[in-house]
Amino acid sequence: MQLFSRIREKRPLVHCITNYVTVNDCANILLAAGVSPVMADDTGEVEEMTALADALVINIGTLNARTVEAMCLAGRRANALGRPVVLDPVGAGATALRTETAKRLLEKIRFTAIRGNASELRALRGTASSTQGVDAAESDAVQADRIDDALAFVCDVAKQTGSIIAMTGAVDIISGSGGTQCAIIRNGHPMMASVTGTGCQLSALLGASLAVHGEDPFTGTVHAVLTMGIAGEIAHRRLTPADGNATYRNYIIDAVCHMTDTDVKEGARYERRML
Amino acid sequence: MQLFSRIREKRPLVHCITNYVTVNDCANILLAAGVSPVMADDTGEVEEMTALADALVINIGTLNARTVEAMCLAGRRANALGRPVVLDPVGAGATALRTETAKRLLEKIRFTAIRGNASELRALRGTASSTQGVDAAESDAVQADRIDDALAFVCDVAKQTGSIIAMTGAVDIISGSGGTQCAIIRNGHPMMASVTGTGCQLSALLGASLAVHGEDPFTGTVHAVLTMGIAGEIAHRRLTPADGNATYRNYIIDAVCHMTDTDVKEGARYERRML
Amino acid sequence: MQLFSRIREKRPLVHCITNYVTVNDCANILLAAGVSPVMADDTGEVEEMTALADALVINIGTLNARTVEAMCLAGRRANALGRPVVLDPVGAGATALRTETAKRLLEKIRFTAIRGNASELRALRGTASSTQGVDAAESDAVQADRIDDALAFVCDVAKQTGSIIAMTGAVDIISGSGGTQCAIIRNGHPMMASVTGTGCQLSALLGASLAVHGEDPFTGTVHAVLTMGIAGEIAHRRLTPADGNATYRNYIIDAVCHMTDTDVKEGARYERRML
Repeated sequence: MQLFSRIREKRPLVHCITNYVTVNDCANILLAAGVSPVMADDTGEVEEMTALADALVINIGTLNARTVEAMCLAGRRANALGRPVVLDPVGAGATALRTETAKRLLEKIRFTAIRGNASELRALRGTASSTQGVDAAESDAVQADRIDDALAFVCDVAKQTGSIIAMTGAVDIISGSGGTQCAIIRNGHPMMASVTGTGCQLSALLGASLAVHGEDPFTGTVHAVLTMGIAGEIAHRRLTPADGNATYRNYIIDAVCHMTDTDVKEGARYERRML
Repeated sequence: MQLFSRIREKRPLVHCITNYVTVNDCANILLAAGVSPVMADDTGEVEEMTALADALVINIGTLNARTVEAMCLAGRRANALGRPVVLDPVGAGATALRTETAKRLLEKIRFTAIRGNASELRALRGTASSTQGVDAAESDAVQADRIDDALAFVCDVAKQTGSIIAMTGAVDIISGSGGTQCAIIRNGHPMMASVTGTGCQLSALLGASLAVHGEDPFTGTVHAVLTMGIAGEIAHRRLTPADGNATYRNYIIDAVCHMTDTDVKEGARYERRML
Repeated sequence: MQLFSRIREKRPLVHCITNYVTVNDCANILLAAGVSPVMADDTGEVEEMTALADALVINIGTLNARTVEAMCLAGRRANALGRPVVLDPVGAGATALRTETAKRLLEKIRFTAIRGNASELRALRGTASSTQGVDAAESDAVQADRIDDALAFVCDVAKQTGSIIAMTGAVDIISGSGGTQCAIIRNGHPMMASVTGTGCQLSALLGASLAVHGEDPFTGTVHAVLTMGIAGEIAHRRLTPADGNATYRNYIIDAVCHMTDTDVKEGARYERRML
């Protein structure tokens, strides 16, 4: 496990083109991890900013025509320079604009990794059963007794896209290397779903992790997902009876601020599988 | 009192077209209440998003030409589908753009409820004495000894617009049913004015409450206003001497996270009047 | 020292055209200080909003073509009305768009004060060695043993621009009156760099301080910089071992909420120099 040691040594710059709902938390969780975050979304500068950065994170949470164009420009520049790129297809499946934008980005940009919930990833494949705004539909969520179905689905998406896929929810499933490597992660806490942007924050951390795991992006993805889940657990243990989701939000970021690779190693509840 | 029981059973989806200053708090307070929030403001998707949602909240806090167009489209779609729509005319009266936008929205969209401070509501009627940015002018604020004047004003606006009007401040006054029903609410704490976006958060909660009070939107409005005020009181009791408005902001959302209908019933300080 | 006494008496309105990453914290720190903040960035209203306001703060953190135009309009109106204007050239030096926008704003608008880190200010002069996104490059940062070089640089920028320059970092250096007055401030805590937007928040406070120090903007700038540094110190003393940058963020704003002029006077670690 070498995530925090690498990040804190290299202090990578992560460029986020992201939504205005959770952008502040994304910046603070990156700073907590030791990353230098930069948020920039104007078509007049995103290529240059991406060229300065060690990774690019594209999040379509509050997309509009102007920012989608910026996402395309930045993504292509990152590809040209060989920098890791993350896609967070927030709300894909909820509206045609989101689904089509996500697909358009997939056509134009080679993503190192894609992180989404079950409904969003199904939408990328055209198989979403339904969508509840930006949350996963219950019928899409991974059930503990249907892990094998979910694994097969995630591996399929990994094979189809050529990206590492991280499908997060009650159980997180990651697949990479064209669907031949998988990991199942059981960290986290259900209350994380009551904090807006824990998914966005994970996608931002994923960008940082890929920036320091160029040689093994699958492991980098696993580490980022473990980190967010364990942060959710550490933060939950601090809560007093009067604390709710707002305090929890702060404590999750606080937890990342103090986390070490040893914490990740000791707290990890996951298994790797080769298919 | 059935607000939280209904919300937590139905888990309504509330679509907010709102400002980028307080959007994160709006999302987190909705999640605290058990609502699924979705923020989307592009003209290419807002109608579709509204069609998925159980209520629409329009907040003009950082309006621009692009988002005003989206507000119009979403509002008309909500009307066509019979979904509740809330207007928060942030800063109406401060600039012509805000006053005219609020009026234009009122012409195009039938709002179930409008929540604003005294200056904003006076601006909708063209009678604002002055404005202090997005805060109510002192001369407009409801004085404890002039409740009857304020009641008459709010009932007039309700009659004129056909919407339920919630005028919030030191005392909150609500009028509905064409001005024949009123409520005066004395919950809340003065320190709420030192947290940015407590008004925006209330407007978001109001959307959620209307989503589960389709049969009685007046009661739904009263419950939302009571909830925010009582949350402000519960949160204030938690503060230690070193805590200020930032911690207070978190505690208000935390309070909603734990609130029940019993808390609202027992904490409510209000009277209803029929005119 | 008369910052809080003046602000809390006058309750100035401060108009911010700022980025969507840290805008909520800017609003809450202004409210903490007793200021009425208003965020508005549409070209259709910024001139009118600035005319209502006691100061204007322009922050280019997430600039785009639309908002840059609004910055120009608002800045020129503020100049015409004799209102103080602050520039925060976030990320100048990182991309050509940011550097050129900052220079364009400097040509069109007379800024009362400019606050930036070492790299940003060097970019305004065309002498930045390099840039790390929105953070100062290490080679640009002020070293304790090279204060005199930094002083000379800041005085030069003050002379060239005719603005008061506040270069903030481990040590803060302020120069005004055409470079003849200087101050060196040693308040603050290194952990402030791990909270996104402490610089933006200072720029917002600077606008408020200038609004109540019309007769002596240099002193107003010194007070704002002292306030932010001392808030960082007070907040840091409250942290428990599990607290990280998210809690620290809240405590900094909380500290301003309770701060008095006596606190600033007693906590200040600075020296003034006449050149």
